[in-house]
Amino acid sequence: MTNRQIRLQRRPSGAPTPDDFAIVDSPAPTIEDGHVLRRTIYLSLDPYMRGRMNDARSYAKPVALGDVMVGGTVSEVVESRHPSFKAGDFVVGMDGWQQWASSAPTGLQRLDPTVAPISTALGVLGMPGLTAYVGLLDIGLAKSGETVVVSAASGAVGAVVGQLARLKGCRAVGVAGSKDKCDYVTRDLGFDAAVSHRDPALRAALSAACPDGVDVYFENVGGVVLEAVMGLLNRGARIPLCGLVSQYNVRPLPPGPNLIPLLTNRARIQGFLVMDHFDRYDAFMREVAPWVRSGELRYREDIVEGLDAAPQAFIGMLEGKNFGKLLVRISPDPTRQ
Amino acid sequence: MTNRQIRLQRRPSGAPTPDDFAIVDSPAPTIEDGHVLRRTIYLSLDPYMRGRMNDARSYAKPVALGDVMVGGTVSEVVESRHPSFKAGDFVVGMDGWQQWASSAPTGLQRLDPTVAPISTALGVLGMPGLTAYVGLLDIGLAKSGETVVVSAASGAVGAVVGQLARLKGCRAVGVAGSKDKCDYVTRDLGFDAAVSHRDPALRAALSAACPDGVDVYFENVGGVVLEAVMGLLNRGARIPLCGLVSQYNVRPLPPGPNLIPLLTNRARIQGFLVMDHFDRYDAFMREVAPWVRSGELRYREDIVEGLDAAPQAFIGMLEGKNFGKLLVRISPDPTRQ
Repeated sequence: MTNRQIRLQRRPSGAPTPDDFAIVDSPAPTIEDGHVLRRTIYLSLDPYMRGRMNDARSYAKPVALGDVMVGGTVSEVVESRHPSFKAGDFVVGMDGWQQWASSAPTGLQRLDPTVAPISTALGVLGMPGLTAYVGLLDIGLAKSGETVVVSAASGAVGAVVGQLARLKGCRAVGVAGSKDKCDYVTRDLGFDAAVSHRDPALRAALSAACPDGVDVYFENVGGVVLEAVMGLLNRGARIPLCGLVSQYNVRPLPPGPNLIPLLTNRARIQGFLVMDHFDRYDAFMREVAPWVRSGELRYREDIVEGLDAAPQAFIGMLEGKNFGKLLVRISPDPTRQ
Repeated sequence: MTNRQIRLQRRPSGAPTPDDFAIVDSPAPTIEDGHVLRRTIYLSLDPYMRGRMNDARSYAKPVALGDVMVGGTVSEVVESRHPSFKAGDFVVGMDGWQQWASSAPTGLQRLDPTVAPISTALGVLGMPGLTAYVGLLDIGLAKSGETVVVSAASGAVGAVVGQLARLKGCRAVGVAGSKDKCDYVTRDLGFDAAVSHRDPALRAALSAACPDGVDVYFENVGGVVLEAVMGLLNRGARIPLCGLVSQYNVRPLPPGPNLIPLLTNRARIQGFLVMDHFDRYDAFMREVAPWVRSGELRYREDIVEGLDAAPQAFIGMLEGKNFGKLLVRISPDPTRQ
């Protein structure tokens, strides 16, 4: 029995290529006392992973060359030598880009598959959902009646931001990269309006979509969208800065927007990382899980099949090719027929 | 008797020139019932005035073409037909670039010349001092033990920021435009270090001056200083955005810094305007006035003589030519011999 893994083979300069990853068949892990052996079902692919491929000082250690790529996972426990888990349990963890893992269960959380599909623990009810919740409410301080703009609006985080904004009484305006994605967020997710960031008249389109200006801009991408929003800020506007995915493959780093609109509007840009806000997880689940169960808060998954497909799917995600929360199905999900 | 005034004659494109201003001898104002007639002693020159010369939507109305330039003033009451004021009173107000004014005393505040020199009502104990206080403490949330960097460090606002930071137990690092100004803030004002923004190795010099990184950057100028600071931010750093004077004459507006350091450091840039914080004036005076009287908080004035000198002094200020709080003495100060 082998454990297929995807390891970081080379640090990318610019956009990652398949050669930056090595697909390696390692011996399957053996289980020790106190450990839990699990088989990965879903691997989450997220933009933050691009940063971990760089050898740069940042908020988290880079992935070492030769190490398995980092990543959130949903797995099934195959054998447990720890009293808190038993075979057949579903767990969410950070097992990375591989088929198997065995370790003490530090950081593993058991999932109840009757609450929501287990894959949602990597999306709408997992880290991306919590990111949306914290960024919109704790950092962005969105209030009923305000206008919230979110970029990467059809993505794992953006889709939750806009729907939460609506549920909180805000006007929700999405920015996405294609007509299909714009249609999706307005028709399926109930956003009030959507604008394509490829629209050459982006600024005018956004202005038309935000007749009362912008109070909160939830920033996932950087670049032209942020430029356009800066000209539409209301007094006291907040820009929770969650990601700048348009820049992750770009060196030297491009400049940012001129900051005079922050000054004249007493507005702010505030970076945040979800890892600082895990204490909000219970409040998030209490509030958001019922909306997911009732269908008031919808989600879309973009699932690719098999670990070998992960590098190409990841590369595509950085170019905006995914449509919905990007997951890799590494082994069959026994809860889905 | 005439009232010499300086009016906005033309909207500047780029740096203002003397021809943008008109020096006009108008009839002196006459006093009406309920009004207070006063003679201007000091006119304050401040960077915000450059913004008012543009015909652009901003936080305050532009000065209309042909109108007297806006500005804070300290004056002596010559005749009063209002019960709250009497001849000989000193008042601070917004009478603008002119020798005389008469109006109902809305917005006029009486000054006690025994508390501090009356000119300080335009500087260390006036709007610039309050700007420093609010920006450092309410927006920047500076705490003892932190490192505070301030640009335009020898200016009216910056000098107070650095000294307040020291008085609050912070490390204070100034950025200024000449060796004289750097020497002044370290030797005379007690800053821990100072760096010239003309230093070609600015980033390295700033890094050496901030061995523990930067927790608060009080931003007055923009451009290369902000770029350099962005690479030195600590986790949770705050950047109160008070001004961007290096850009006020520049069109098109230059880009800003890349924002990835805000993300990785969970840091923020927050614009503010002192006019939103006048409710902090009493607390500011209670805390800061005693330090000014005791000499623990020092200030420097750069006084030019005569209203006619105001345009050139203002033009020079935007290039960093002043050294200390820039004032125009329009008529003799009877409290100074």
